Amino acid sequence: MMTQPIFYHAGCSICIEAEQHLADALGAEIVHLGDTPERITEAELAGVKSVPAVLMGGAVFHINFGAAMTDFKA
Amino acid sequence: MMTQPIFYHAGCSICIEAEQHLADALGAEIVHLGDTPERITEAELAGVKSVPAVLMGGAVFHINFGAAMTDFKA
Repeated sequence: MMTQPIFYHAGCSICIEAEQHLADALGAEIVHLGDTPERITEAELAGVKSVPAVLMGGAVFHINFGAAMTDFKA
Repeated sequence: MMTQPIFYHAGCSICIEAEQHLADALGAEIVHLGDTPERITEAELAGVKSVPAVLMGGAVFHINFGAAMTDFKA
């Protein structure tokens, strides 16, 4: 059974739009990296380079471009 | 009722991976712009700038980066 997709985002307008359309339709777990910074490392190890992004079946899909992961580490 | 999402792509490796994971999970119509060039204008009017991309609820989600739409017009 495939694991639940994870939607990583940072609450930006691009993120919210992607969340409301894609993440909800995919039944993804929603992870706001600004609210849960302890999950940034997990996202980076999975290959997430920018948000919003969907991790699904081991593959990362970066959606449009909201913010780079490096923006979280200022 | 929301219209069926449309997954525009061009058969590149990034496109295929996104198709197998995202497009199938979303139940999207699959449109290969290389095979159906008559749908390029439709995609551009919807706001598609690169493929793979998902058109959903009027919003366009560009996924990773496979090819720019301009590559179709050589």
